Amino acid sequence: MIKVGIVGGTGYTGVELLRLLAGHPQVTLKTITSRADAGTPVSQMFPSLRRFVDLPFCHPDQAQLNNCDLVFFATPNGIAMQQTRALLEAGVRVIDLSADFRLQDIEVWEKWYGMTHICPDLVASAIYGLPEMNRAQIKNARLVANPGCYPTAVQLGFIPLLEEGVIEKTSLIADTKSGVSGGGRKLELSYLFSEAADNFKAYGVTGHRHLPEIKQGLVRVLGDNVELTFVPHLTPMIRGIHATLYGKLTREMDLQDLFERRYADEPFVDVMPSGSLPETRSVRGANQCRIAVHRPQGGDMIVVLSVIDNLVKGAAGQAIQNMNIMFGLHEKTALNNIPLLL
Amino acid sequence: MIKVGIVGGTGYTGVELLRLLAGHPQVTLKTITSRADAGTPVSQMFPSLRRFVDLPFCHPDQAQLNNCDLVFFATPNGIAMQQTRALLEAGVRVIDLSADFRLQDIEVWEKWYGMTHICPDLVASAIYGLPEMNRAQIKNARLVANPGCYPTAVQLGFIPLLEEGVIEKTSLIADTKSGVSGGGRKLELSYLFSEAADNFKAYGVTGHRHLPEIKQGLVRVLGDNVELTFVPHLTPMIRGIHATLYGKLTREMDLQDLFERRYADEPFVDVMPSGSLPETRSVRGANQCRIAVHRPQGGDMIVVLSVIDNLVKGAAGQAIQNMNIMFGLHEKTALNNIPLLL
Amino acid sequence: MIKVGIVGGTGYTGVELLRLLAGHPQVTLKTITSRADAGTPVSQMFPSLRRFVDLPFCHPDQAQLNNCDLVFFATPNGIAMQQTRALLEAGVRVIDLSADFRLQDIEVWEKWYGMTHICPDLVASAIYGLPEMNRAQIKNARLVANPGCYPTAVQLGFIPLLEEGVIEKTSLIADTKSGVSGGGRKLELSYLFSEAADNFKAYGVTGHRHLPEIKQGLVRVLGDNVELTFVPHLTPMIRGIHATLYGKLTREMDLQDLFERRYADEPFVDVMPSGSLPETRSVRGANQCRIAVHRPQGGDMIVVLSVIDNLVKGAAGQAIQNMNIMFGLHEKTALNNIPLLL
Amino acid sequence: MIKVGIVGGTGYTGVELLRLLAGHPQVTLKTITSRADAGTPVSQMFPSLRRFVDLPFCHPDQAQLNNCDLVFFATPNGIAMQQTRALLEAGVRVIDLSADFRLQDIEVWEKWYGMTHICPDLVASAIYGLPEMNRAQIKNARLVANPGCYPTAVQLGFIPLLEEGVIEKTSLIADTKSGVSGGGRKLELSYLFSEAADNFKAYGVTGHRHLPEIKQGLVRVLGDNVELTFVPHLTPMIRGIHATLYGKLTREMDLQDLFERRYADEPFVDVMPSGSLPETRSVRGANQCRIAVHRPQGGDMIVVLSVIDNLVKGAAGQAIQNMNIMFGLHEKTALNNIPLLL
Repeated sequence: MIKVGIVGGTGYTGVELLRLLAGHPQVTLKTITSRADAGTPVSQMFPSLRRFVDLPFCHPDQAQLNNCDLVFFATPNGIAMQQTRALLEAGVRVIDLSADFRLQDIEVWEKWYGMTHICPDLVASAIYGLPEMNRAQIKNARLVANPGCYPTAVQLGFIPLLEEGVIEKTSLIADTKSGVSGGGRKLELSYLFSEAADNFKAYGVTGHRHLPEIKQGLVRVLGDNVELTFVPHLTPMIRGIHATLYGKLTREMDLQDLFERRYADEPFVDVMPSGSLPETRSVRGANQCRIAVHRPQGGDMIVVLSVIDNLVKGAAGQAIQNMNIMFGLHEKTALNNIPLLL
Repeated sequence: MIKVGIVGGTGYTGVELLRLLAGHPQVTLKTITSRADAGTPVSQMFPSLRRFVDLPFCHPDQAQLNNCDLVFFATPNGIAMQQTRALLEAGVRVIDLSADFRLQDIEVWEKWYGMTHICPDLVASAIYGLPEMNRAQIKNARLVANPGCYPTAVQLGFIPLLEEGVIEKTSLIADTKSGVSGGGRKLELSYLFSEAADNFKAYGVTGHRHLPEIKQGLVRVLGDNVELTFVPHLTPMIRGIHATLYGKLTREMDLQDLFERRYADEPFVDVMPSGSLPETRSVRGANQCRIAVHRPQGGDMIVVLSVIDNLVKGAAGQAIQNMNIMFGLHEKTALNNIPLLL
Repeated sequence: MIKVGIVGGTGYTGVELLRLLAGHPQVTLKTITSRADAGTPVSQMFPSLRRFVDLPFCHPDQAQLNNCDLVFFATPNGIAMQQTRALLEAGVRVIDLSADFRLQDIEVWEKWYGMTHICPDLVASAIYGLPEMNRAQIKNARLVANPGCYPTAVQLGFIPLLEEGVIEKTSLIADTKSGVSGGGRKLELSYLFSEAADNFKAYGVTGHRHLPEIKQGLVRVLGDNVELTFVPHLTPMIRGIHATLYGKLTREMDLQDLFERRYADEPFVDVMPSGSLPETRSVRGANQCRIAVHRPQGGDMIVVLSVIDNLVKGAAGQAIQNMNIMFGLHEKTALNNIPLLL
Repeated sequence: MIKVGIVGGTGYTGVELLRLLAGHPQVTLKTITSRADAGTPVSQMFPSLRRFVDLPFCHPDQAQLNNCDLVFFATPNGIAMQQTRALLEAGVRVIDLSADFRLQDIEVWEKWYGMTHICPDLVASAIYGLPEMNRAQIKNARLVANPGCYPTAVQLGFIPLLEEGVIEKTSLIADTKSGVSGGGRKLELSYLFSEAADNFKAYGVTGHRHLPEIKQGLVRVLGDNVELTFVPHLTPMIRGIHATLYGKLTREMDLQDLFERRYADEPFVDVMPSGSLPETRSVRGANQCRIAVHRPQGGDMIVVLSVIDNLVKGAAGQAIQNMNIMFGLHEKTALNNIPLLL
């Protein structure tokens, strides 16, 4: 059994980790920390976990994380980088669901996240946890930087096209739409029901932290620079990301075949039949990315539609997928539930 | 392995049965019928089932239901009563999720459902599938009438009070609220998003088909007549029923203790701690009923709050719970998933 | 022209006052205060007001409220009682949309609101601003306590029955459902979209501040004590209150006729035809209360359905209705817009 | 007073026309037709209109439309073209809210709408009712083709850029998102609450009827061919369209200034301050288009954000705006209500 600890379990990715881990046959949940709610039973804050999770939240000082085999950080940015070195030195493996280890360029990270990074050397050794790109390195990783939600949906949609080199690299567009839970369990006015319901808006048009993460990923795939316009939007739904991706085709190609071949062996990427229109609800609660590729009116503008559940394939589910890979388990363990279509 | 057939698989209870049965380790899904969609792969209509259910919908004439051990009817009212006798005679057990076998009084049934019943004798032998009341009879039943969604939530809330005889039987009130999926996958104007979203209304105030079903159940429990006012409301959410039940206390009693004792051994009824306010989302996607009992301002008006997921404990989940009981399986098999709080 | 000031304009009742007042032909909006947002143009915070309201929020110290004819308080509880005396002494009339002057029994107020009241004498002189009860007194009032949202919907539904003395006074039940905006523009977890959407729950079952306000009103109407059970629920919609009221009929009576006669001359109470089911959306954005009265199965349990828009007839609209009455204007001025059904 | 008739008043644009016309001081509503609901009071189907509209729906055969000054068609496509000639010959002016007269190229129209057009000559004489483009011609028009909802939002966003010739004409992208009411009051599965709520999806990617309409408009503006990729999405909200438009800048330009100058005199186009993020709710219920123009990271990809209420500026409101222009009224008459932000 893998002894697992969770740091920061009171947010949406925290409760989602608990939901998925509670059903994992090879995991023992040792501790889940929260400074503010230490002592409170987890199932009191999240009644859906009644009868499934008996632990109370534990104060970080008493958490004995060093005894774990693996620690997940489901914390705000800037926390994981403070505690990861000690854990790694104690032989604990780490999967960070925050952004602390995602960007290899420390200067870029510091600019977008507005903090000084305190362990650039660890960033250098961290593996970016997108299994569809980095499965081999994840296997032996000590420290995994779990991707952001938008970056997961966008990269999975662009990867086949960039690997094959069939789209113009200077005019990529990612028009993305997210459910409100993507903003986390945060008290912000724009996340109030009365502000977010029955409403639609763009945000972060001048710059969103996921932009450099996506660009880093796309550049790695292509081996060359790319220009990307990234416009996220807030949608009145709880879960789900829908990425609508645009790129210009540079030569004729059977795109359906390209996508199907690329993801043929991927357990969690579903290339839908030609002409499909993936819906976010078709992946609700599940570790799936569904993709469709279109060429409207047969022109040279490619449109890729990519949907994930931001809390699962975009966060907690992908983290567990990474754990399964790191510990040599079947990759689908605890991740094989059917989406809740309704 | 239990060979299972589903008649009428294109509605919401149908897809929900599929979602839950696909993960059942002792079930082989043999066939799922649909006259209109015969030949269409199930997963084309419900993409959430891609990679989980490979069957196409089968025309009823080719379904060979007689080879099944168990057939679920997820059909509109009036269908199951036409096909059940032949199945029973062929040794197939039947769980009917429609209302055909729920009411023992045929005259009452015919009045509320506007049809002539063609097999009153089968009604007499049918077992009402509320395990918390009838577990012993369900075990040996050949034909189970699966309860309606409102009746499940309302009866589970009133049962302890009526069994104990601590509430006035002449002034019971069930003010109930349902998500829109309770109306089924039906093309009715009032179920359109633009009509139902951001709106709240009562319906069926002059009479709803679940009223006689609830009364029949409460009368059985009490062994005496009851007067019940039942007012259902349509709520802008997909899943969930919230029943707010009112009754006058007739003698002093520790109600929390009463409820906890009554449901101590029930795997799917969760009596929440005193003062709790159950939320429908705390049972989303799961076969659970969560209940809290209140006495506002310490007066003699009891308020019971009871929530279920109408498609699970109120339909498909309860049907599988009944199947598990009928076939001697662990009652929680395939029903132990954690609710999707968000 | 009536010179109007608004204290506390950054909440939902504030913006709603602005929306309605901006179209009022006899009102000049002189000032709208906000300590935190002084200097910010109102239309920057609420872009719906662009081209309609040019004022910036004004710091309370600079607001010169004494020059107004009328001041609305759209503040949290406990603010209006601090400033009202000075305004009244300066000859300014006051309509308080908070709860400071609603309860005549100071002890009860202090218990429910957790503060010491600093001007009980003003409470004694305040008029409770429910025009359908107190129109004559409102006319000459210097200080109007604008009713709460639930109390408006519940009282309007019970008034005809209590005035006529045809229901049992010891077992009144108000099962009420509110949209999330009823909680105000407050940063509370339970008002987040991801917590409130696709969910339904009761709250305040053990006691809600509107209970004593409703009871005070009903007692006044009946001239005798009443027992009321009040259970509010949070509904996933932005605006709207639906009150489902229960009471036992004590003698035969044409209830439809009773309601129609009672409200025949009321511009903002619409008694719907027998058998109607009022929807909250049918009053969205408008100063209307729609009511239907039922006797399910012809029994002696009366069910009254009463819907309002909590921000209009339940707050800002009713405040302007009171203003119109106080200043001798046509009562419908600026309140005659058609509800936004969709 | 203008005598107005409405053909086809039972859909969402019909009720919206009624809502806006009922408050129009220079309009007398003479008749509103519905074959299926003849005799039913309009306010019975749409209770929001109680006390505002007393008419019943009238059978088309009895409607005496020839006596009107103006007839609005709020019908499915293919109806207006059958009745318009007779009306025009009787001296009645016509505003068609359906698509019958929108496309000048009959062949293109017939291909996209799947019907034979029966009056191509009338198409030739019809004026496309986008006042921001065609105000002068609308003034004297006998027959106005009211624009579609997407075309309104998209054209208003692109017009300044195309008129000025500052974007590449070969790679325009319109990624658009619509509320569900955009689909009309139609019984389609995908418009059911349980299918559309908490979900997001693209549709019509291979081709949507609004594509040729938008292209026709953009080509007229530019005076040259354009290539446009148009991807509409269904969003879980009732009203609202958000268009996110992409184009490549061809030379340096102060875009904010360009947009502000272009729309300086437009009563219903609001160019928001630089950096703004228009929300659909900021125009809810109102005849407004709010636009913001961005250059993310200062690159050469322009992003225009354009929001309208699909039922108002995208349908009924624009139709009334056209009526006001045609009859020499102040353009804002009956259209000056403040949006319902919440």
